[in-house]
Amino acid sequence: MNFDEIYDRVATRSSKWTLMASGFGITDAETLPMWVADMDFRAPSFLSDAVREVAEAGDFGYFAHTDTYREAAAWWSKTRHGWEISPDRIINTASLGNAIAFAIQTWSTPGDAVAIFTPVYHEFAMKIRKNGRTVTELPLVAADGRFTLDFDACEARMTGRETMLLLASPHNPGGRVWTVDELRAIADFAARHDLVLVSDEIHNDIVMPGFTHVPTALAAPDARSRLVTMTSASKTFSIAGTRLGAVIIEDDRLHRQYANIVNRADLYPNLFGVVLSRAAYSPEGAAWVDQLVGYLAENNALFHERISAIPGTLVHELQGTYLAWVDFSRLGMTDEELWRRVTQKARVLPSPGPNFGTGGEGGLRFNLGTQRARVEEAADRLVAAFADLQ
Amino acid sequence: MNFDEIYDRVATRSSKWTLMASGFGITDAETLPMWVADMDFRAPSFLSDAVREVAEAGDFGYFAHTDTYREAAAWWSKTRHGWEISPDRIINTASLGNAIAFAIQTWSTPGDAVAIFTPVYHEFAMKIRKNGRTVTELPLVAADGRFTLDFDACEARMTGRETMLLLASPHNPGGRVWTVDELRAIADFAARHDLVLVSDEIHNDIVMPGFTHVPTALAAPDARSRLVTMTSASKTFSIAGTRLGAVIIEDDRLHRQYANIVNRADLYPNLFGVVLSRAAYSPEGAAWVDQLVGYLAENNALFHERISAIPGTLVHELQGTYLAWVDFSRLGMTDEELWRRVTQKARVLPSPGPNFGTGGEGGLRFNLGTQRARVEEAADRLVAAFADLQ
Ligand SMILES: Cc1ncc(COP(=O)(O)O)c(C=O)c1O
Ligand SMILES: Cc1ncc(COP(=O)(O)O)c(C=O)c1O
Repeated sequence: MNFDEIYDRVATRSSKWTLMASGFGITDAETLPMWVADMDFRAPSFLSDAVREVAEAGDFGYFAHTDTYREAAAWWSKTRHGWEISPDRIINTASLGNAIAFAIQTWSTPGDAVAIFTPVYHEFAMKIRKNGRTVTELPLVAADGRFTLDFDACEARMTGRETMLLLASPHNPGGRVWTVDELRAIADFAARHDLVLVSDEIHNDIVMPGFTHVPTALAAPDARSRLVTMTSASKTFSIAGTRLGAVIIEDDRLHRQYANIVNRADLYPNLFGVVLSRAAYSPEGAAWVDQLVGYLAENNALFHERISAIPGTLVHELQGTYLAWVDFSRLGMTDEELWRRVTQKARVLPSPGPNFGTGGEGGLRFNLGTQRARVEEAADRLVAAFADLQ
Repeated sequence: MNFDEIYDRVATRSSKWTLMASGFGITDAETLPMWVADMDFRAPSFLSDAVREVAEAGDFGYFAHTDTYREAAAWWSKTRHGWEISPDRIINTASLGNAIAFAIQTWSTPGDAVAIFTPVYHEFAMKIRKNGRTVTELPLVAADGRFTLDFDACEARMTGRETMLLLASPHNPGGRVWTVDELRAIADFAARHDLVLVSDEIHNDIVMPGFTHVPTALAAPDARSRLVTMTSASKTFSIAGTRLGAVIIEDDRLHRQYANIVNRADLYPNLFGVVLSRAAYSPEGAAWVDQLVGYLAENNALFHERISAIPGTLVHELQGTYLAWVDFSRLGMTDEELWRRVTQKARVLPSPGPNFGTGGEGGLRFNLGTQRARVEEAADRLVAAFADLQ
């Protein structure tokens, strides 16, 4: 796999490349999109071939082979993450966004609150709010270029109306891969407040050398009676267009409650989601991910080094995900000034820090899931755009 | 397109061919499946090619070309059904099953009732019940080999708790294509009881020569303030595996309410649903459907003639859909006897009449969306299985 191959995603009308104008008012075609979380690589051949096979077979009707995908997902969980799950514990949804929305609907009612560690994937708060629930922000602490937990601060934020804790593990943004101790402390916190703990592990496969993602179910086995784990092949293999999510629930009661909402909505996995995820969760998929992670680690090393050279910037240590967090707060700019400089002077489009909630101010998230040349170009442009400060 | 080509759907693990054992306890591999509503033809090349193109392009990430599909759907509505809709009136769901479930959740609350004309597509009642609502069965009258409406009988069934009327137009089973007068009377009935009228028009393209499907929106324009129309390419082109439904709502308030439930669930159309539906709603798709309908009409003529020759059977006139309704009630058998004879002696698997609700007793629904040779074989076997009665 040649990850360096420049690949045109304007032609495929990818969101990342073609919604810069409608999303951010950016019409300059030279702006490098480093926002929404998918990758710019051409799909590997084992995925395209799987699609071709379905085209060849020529049957797009009702199908009965979702079991083969579930077995592949269980195999992946076991071989890649050491977590043995029974395929029948997997409930499928139409994307992980949908999975999260249904979790909110299942384990809270309007007026209840859902707790999240911020800054975090902006859609968490959006999905909570659009379902008429309140967001309880538990602030992460930025120390030494990484986000950490401060449970005293968290305790102080709890209102007593929380019924659910929604965790991103690995964390987006900030790229933290939580340690076993941290995960245990989070599970204890959930237990203390009697919260359903939803562990969104969509970024579990993109983990930098030297770090290990541990599923919450393994780190905190005592939490299993309150634990809901979410995964998907959509980030790892950049197949988010297929809209398929997997929700793994070992506890019978929680499993029944969640199966019920999916069943009431009459959701079944779609054919190409099943076919592509199955092809992804394979030995070929594993080998490809290993290569990919190596490539992303080099992207990150380059980006980290170049951007760190800008005085006053703090690039967080990327432990997992391909989403680099840069803290510009010591520059003393407003978020508006920072945004203008990055998007208009550097002509790079990251995700705005404040979108991720409290603690995101002064920060920007850069998507490094792209060709090396583009990462270099972005770094060069950013360095140049801040050169006057040196 | 050679519709006669025998095509192996066991190899593709289609539900229709591989779930006979788990669904009905039928393990005999020679049994002809004529139950679930999809067709046994190899997908036409304009669909397979559209899938191949996506494989070739190699981008399965977040995409921004759902607009092109919506425009194609609007073009199809206008050119095939004479109904001009604005693409932005279309809300997408993950299948029409999902669309129906969300309509039930939107326009009724637990304890409310949803009215349906029975016998009707069995999933209507199932979706109503699994959402904790009550089914109000409005019985159709079988007269002269076709189902008709009897509004006096319907009035008598109304409990006052109904908030929604769910209509299949064309009707499944029974194959009625409702006339403009009937549709107006249904709309008047909905108005009289202040019901949201959900018109499920998924079978709108498969209409036999001599009949015309009229969208409820055109037949009863006065009903538009209470009307929700559902369509999909999934029946017409047998692409139900892609899980994409289209809900068309002209009324602003109803549109907002429905968009809200889809938005709260975080549902977005999946890539291959968009690509295949767009390829379907095309001039090539139109030409293919014309051919298909001709072929299905011949299947129906053959089936109708042969089965009608069995004394005591009444084959309903197939006006639309590829789902033939046969009324065996004059044979005086129990439904169990009838089922055993058809599935074990004839080794044909239709859909059991009683599943479709009141009025379905003594009937069976046969799916004619298959190769001529299979329809002939099924007819021969059925004739033989009932030969002792002659
Ligand atoms: C933590 C997290 N969860 C969920 C999602 C959404 O996944 P999907 O595309 O399956 O809705 C994302 C996408 O960026 C994410 O970062
Ligand atoms: C009247 C009717 N509505 C809806 C459906 C289900 O459609 P989908 O496969 O999109 O859920 C069917 C399938 O047979 C049907 O006959």
